[in-house]
Amino acid sequence: MKTTMMDQALSINHFLDRAGTLFKHNEIVSRLPDKTLVRHSYGQWHRRTLSLASALQRAGLQKGDRVATLCWNHHMHLEAYFGIPAAGGVMHTLNLRLSAEELGWIAADAKDRILIVDDVLLPLYLQMAALHAFERVIVFPFSGAPVPPEFTSYEAFIAEGDADGFTPVPHGEDEAIAICYTSGTTGRPKGVAYSHRSTVLHTLVGCLGDHWGLRGIDVVMPVTPMFHANSWGMPYGAVMVGAKLVFPGPHLHADDLLDLMQLEPPTLSLGVPTIWMSLIQTYERSLTEHPGRWKLPAGMRSLVGGAAVPESLIRAFDAHGIWIMQGWGMTETSPIATISYARAELKDASAEERYRRAAMAGVIAPLVELRLKTEEGLIAPWDGQTMGEVQVRGPFITGSYHEVPVTEDKFTADGWLRTGDVATLDDLGFLRITDRTKDLIKSGGEWISSVDVENALMAHPAVAEAAVIAIPDEKWSERPLACVVFKPGQNAPAEALNAHLISHGFAKWQCPERYEVIAAVPRTSTGKFWKLKLREMFPR
Amino acid sequence: MKTTMMDQALSINHFLDRAGTLFKHNEIVSRLPDKTLVRHSYGQWHRRTLSLASALQRAGLQKGDRVATLCWNHHMHLEAYFGIPAAGGVMHTLNLRLSAEELGWIAADAKDRILIVDDVLLPLYLQMAALHAFERVIVFPFSGAPVPPEFTSYEAFIAEGDADGFTPVPHGEDEAIAICYTSGTTGRPKGVAYSHRSTVLHTLVGCLGDHWGLRGIDVVMPVTPMFHANSWGMPYGAVMVGAKLVFPGPHLHADDLLDLMQLEPPTLSLGVPTIWMSLIQTYERSLTEHPGRWKLPAGMRSLVGGAAVPESLIRAFDAHGIWIMQGWGMTETSPIATISYARAELKDASAEERYRRAAMAGVIAPLVELRLKTEEGLIAPWDGQTMGEVQVRGPFITGSYHEVPVTEDKFTADGWLRTGDVATLDDLGFLRITDRTKDLIKSGGEWISSVDVENALMAHPAVAEAAVIAIPDEKWSERPLACVVFKPGQNAPAEALNAHLISHGFAKWQCPERYEVIAAVPRTSTGKFWKLKLREMFPR
Repeated sequence: MKTTMMDQALSINHFLDRAGTLFKHNEIVSRLPDKTLVRHSYGQWHRRTLSLASALQRAGLQKGDRVATLCWNHHMHLEAYFGIPAAGGVMHTLNLRLSAEELGWIAADAKDRILIVDDVLLPLYLQMAALHAFERVIVFPFSGAPVPPEFTSYEAFIAEGDADGFTPVPHGEDEAIAICYTSGTTGRPKGVAYSHRSTVLHTLVGCLGDHWGLRGIDVVMPVTPMFHANSWGMPYGAVMVGAKLVFPGPHLHADDLLDLMQLEPPTLSLGVPTIWMSLIQTYERSLTEHPGRWKLPAGMRSLVGGAAVPESLIRAFDAHGIWIMQGWGMTETSPIATISYARAELKDASAEERYRRAAMAGVIAPLVELRLKTEEGLIAPWDGQTMGEVQVRGPFITGSYHEVPVTEDKFTADGWLRTGDVATLDDLGFLRITDRTKDLIKSGGEWISSVDVENALMAHPAVAEAAVIAIPDEKWSERPLACVVFKPGQNAPAEALNAHLISHGFAKWQCPERYEVIAAVPRTSTGKFWKLKLREMFPR
Repeated sequence: MKTTMMDQALSINHFLDRAGTLFKHNEIVSRLPDKTLVRHSYGQWHRRTLSLASALQRAGLQKGDRVATLCWNHHMHLEAYFGIPAAGGVMHTLNLRLSAEELGWIAADAKDRILIVDDVLLPLYLQMAALHAFERVIVFPFSGAPVPPEFTSYEAFIAEGDADGFTPVPHGEDEAIAICYTSGTTGRPKGVAYSHRSTVLHTLVGCLGDHWGLRGIDVVMPVTPMFHANSWGMPYGAVMVGAKLVFPGPHLHADDLLDLMQLEPPTLSLGVPTIWMSLIQTYERSLTEHPGRWKLPAGMRSLVGGAAVPESLIRAFDAHGIWIMQGWGMTETSPIATISYARAELKDASAEERYRRAAMAGVIAPLVELRLKTEEGLIAPWDGQTMGEVQVRGPFITGSYHEVPVTEDKFTADGWLRTGDVATLDDLGFLRITDRTKDLIKSGGEWISSVDVENALMAHPAVAEAAVIAIPDEKWSERPLACVVFKPGQNAPAEALNAHLISHGFAKWQCPERYEVIAAVPRTSTGKFWKLKLREMFPR
């Protein structure tokens, strides 16, 4: 029996229209390169976005054509988020942390026709210019300086658009609106193409009360780059509910963020652990060095993800009244797959228990199916112990990569995405990532989770950062080696660190065989520990 | 350009699975006819639901077959919500407030094969039994009494099901899961068939922070009947997030609800204005007459809808720390179309202003498009003054009625639902319902069609003409008043006219509250009853 419901395609154009009419008074604040703030109402943003869409159409953009962005987080990037799809195009967010060579390769692979680039990022563009010929390069005068005459100015470009006369290009809900390349640690990056449908569904799931709990009265500060899985989808959510947005622009240093939080206190902020670590350290130092300089916004919620969030970081923020929620996901999952939140069953749990849960990847989100596949090919039980590869399925999970054949190392025969992460699931459905399939340490036939050892080491008072890798061992096949960054002026011998681990429940054989003191943990462009580099540094 | 996202159908079977695994410890509490409470975990409910689905399959249920329910709000009704669709069937919730004649007509129109009925509602079933032959009648022993031998006991029925061996029937996302009949307009009731897709989308929108703000730690008390637009979709939301449910069973009197709120304090409750009015009156009386007998749950949110919520009711609850949110919608809109919530722009508004807004129908929900069409066929501006018919469109708005041709009085040529309500929209997008295009009477949350009553009255031998209008009523919001013109030399007392109506299939509450004898029904120039004039003659 068929439904009587209307056959209405899901569309982010609906969010654009909605914000332009319902929320036209609300604000979008952007920090400029000179650190001043610029303000647009949603009404102004809506008109500028329609002008961009119209101008792209007039410039000959055809349905499905890719338009790349090489931009920081600001209002114009949000115009691209909605204006490019409204014109029928596909937004391709280029990651400005990548090398020029990688960027050129990615732009060529995606066949990007047009580039929109911040003027302050022109030097990066010029390095990659030879590797991919964009038909047109549109420069956003983010710094306020005049745009070099050889480029089109974004402001001049959209001034040619006709906001009033524009009608969004009709589309099916499965058509792409954005493409994002994964920063694979091995092999070439691969494109994931989000659709109207996947984006609308992901937005609705992200906004749920146990996740972002996003409301129209929220003030959202997305520190997570808009080129990282669409800033985890938050811009779509903010536009859907009409929340005020505060974009940090290029200023992501801890004191810049703390300054911005004084000017425009957010109720919700999001970023990666590295930045949040430096945020709390800078803030705590300021309490003695510059008392009263900053106040953390009272009651702010913080979403931290993109890499495992150590329990120590959650405790540090909680001491100042800020609760950190972590999620787990990847570019391939839009990205929300799990979020750690206070389940009803934990209402009367101890603080210890709540911290322990908060430091896990969290609970499976609605519309997402998740299973753990053991090495033996079985589905792992939810016992908190049995490890298996995380496999996911759902309407906002990728089922392939852009123009790449589907292979068994990425997708199972029955249609699940193989994430490459290894985890356990406990009785309450909390996922705990124990490792990457590639980073597990197998010692004497037993698994050692490098992530667990790292997190425990980072809870030691002298340790700033720790990354654990496997080194070959004749007897045990592999043994753990810990690369440790100490806090300034601090130190601890290997014996003390191992004693610390043992007092935290680790078996002696799980403790690192060797410690190496390093100045900083090398990181990938997305802020993750770059273990490949460490393995090169310490091959044995 | 196509998406790379998986092509995964939206399905409420996913919510069922999810609750059975993730939330298996959380509770579903039901109040029995003897007022005791029975508790099921979501885990137990999940198994019982799978057993029901399996038993329905074994009983020969085919895909798309209708299974009717005639039930109060309780755990078994929630089993039907998910078990019938899991078996491939379509749940048809029968409104136990309707007359037996209407119920029989509706069941026949929907071609219901099976009926699941509460034992305490068997007398109502027996009245309608002759009007539609269900193949099988399954009786839920809600009261605990033995099921009469001529019927199948629900418990015996599901005991035949195989929960472990059951697999949900595969489906497309546009297939129907539930059908609900409107009783809103002139003529016969019409069926609205919800799909997996519309239900999942409506659930996600309903759960948003500015709407229900539903979280796993919530305790939800749905007083709104599960046969009224699926209790506004709340049961699906509660199952999706794993919120505790507290069902009042048949006990909807104010003191029963207050008693239940002491036993199982809800964080979120929902019901119609009539019941909420009696709730606050009873509670306030108790403060002097039985001090300490009841306490309203601190911080409880309340959703009130189904009829306009008077500002006085919002103020009365607010005086006790409970904020009432009202929504507007109808069976045809799943039902959420608008919800009145505290927009960011109202953050610094006066209490007066906030009450005034709270007493409006509210702000258009995401995924819903709404416009006002004036009498001249123009789109009304958002000026808070221009009235127009409310027309809506969206993926959970009905585009037709079950097996009824699409007509222009119900749907516009460009595909919008004509709601029959007249309203204004103001600058902030707040909808205010000002009138109805048709002259319906809403009594205690239920529609009474004035035209139906008029037609039946005019069938009485003594009556020449009859026109029915709504008069305001404190308790029921509105009650019908009948203006009667007797044939020359004839007469009939009110009791006789009501007896005549009841013999023609009307329920007692649908009969006019009052009769006024008039010389002639005033008519418009086109010969239609001029109800405006009658309302002026009898304002109350």
